[in-house]
Amino acid sequence: MTAPAKRPGRRPGSADTRGEILDAARAEFASRGYEKATVRGIARAAGVDSALVHHYFGSKDRVFLAALEFPLDPAVVLEQVAGDATGIGERLARFVVGLWEVPQTRERLLAVLRTIASNQEMAALVRGFAQPRLIAPLAARVGGTDAEARVEMALAQIIGLAMARYVLGVEPVASLGSEELVALLAPALQRLLG
Amino acid sequence: MTAPAKRPGRRPGSADTRGEILDAARAEFASRGYEKATVRGIARAAGVDSALVHHYFGSKDRVFLAALEFPLDPAVVLEQVAGDATGIGERLARFVVGLWEVPQTRERLLAVLRTIASNQEMAALVRGFAQPRLIAPLAARVGGTDAEARVEMALAQIIGLAMARYVLGVEPVASLGSEELVALLAPALQRLLG
Repeated sequence: MTAPAKRPGRRPGSADTRGEILDAARAEFASRGYEKATVRGIARAAGVDSALVHHYFGSKDRVFLAALEFPLDPAVVLEQVAGDATGIGERLARFVVGLWEVPQTRERLLAVLRTIASNQEMAALVRGFAQPRLIAPLAARVGGTDAEARVEMALAQIIGLAMARYVLGVEPVASLGSEELVALLAPALQRLLG
Repeated sequence: MTAPAKRPGRRPGSADTRGEILDAARAEFASRGYEKATVRGIARAAGVDSALVHHYFGSKDRVFLAALEFPLDPAVVLEQVAGDATGIGERLARFVVGLWEVPQTRERLLAVLRTIASNQEMAALVRGFAQPRLIAPLAARVGGTDAEARVEMALAQIIGLAMARYVLGVEPVASLGSEELVALLAPALQRLLG
């Protein structure tokens, strides 16, 4: 492989700086957890200014997603559930199946799933991110009694179906087309979140 | 540890014979898969008569369950779904939560889940067992269109909830009591199987 040609005036060493921030972020998130890790602490560990971390990533969430190569951005999930309540199941099912059907995204999702299953520190880290940044805001959007538990049931249905289809590979769900998958998943999510 | 006192007249070496049959079964299932493995082949590999395998285990299914320390007997699951259709979700939810709440059974279930997630041969083996022995008979009992896909959605909901509660440990489902879990799971299973 050859290095890409550098554009004139490009900040020297910037690719390495980004990588160094991500290395520092992985160490910081692993040792302090999502909630307690700070952009300031990550910047200090990487030997750069906090403003540079914000310049590259914009927010702690996005540093986290990039550092873990986490393939699911809560902000994008929240966009799917915005809008009318009668279509929430179908919109979310269509979004999720869309992610799965792209091999690169699917592989990252399955890699995170495998790591969580075998590594308690990673499970704690993802839990510390998913609870406040994904589950709580989704539940606030969905509303009603037991909203957080129903959101988790919906995520459980999605994760379980991904395992049945891609990990266990059991028929008939392993061979269903995208539209059939959406038709199977949408009413289950609608019942929980609608 | 001391060996248990042998009862008079007990067949000498029988504990080892059982263990040798299980060793042979693990090798046979791993190399041939669930469908193609035979009690006769397992007996031959263990150097015993087929009748002795039947004497110890009764059927190929039970050799499989014992060899893999598989904590879920399809025959027992089928008992739960027998009976009136209106109560199927609650009966199955109660049965599943009952299994989870016993630490030994839970640990075995999670161990199988972890192994499937990280080991394609194990996934193929469990798939080869679960499809004909668990999913197909459950679907036949449940009936209606897409019965197998709906059964797999129900199993996906169960497995996903177990992961959320015991592997990821995300709140609130990690701290729910048994009855609250049943109340959460039963309607989801009822919608899919009732």
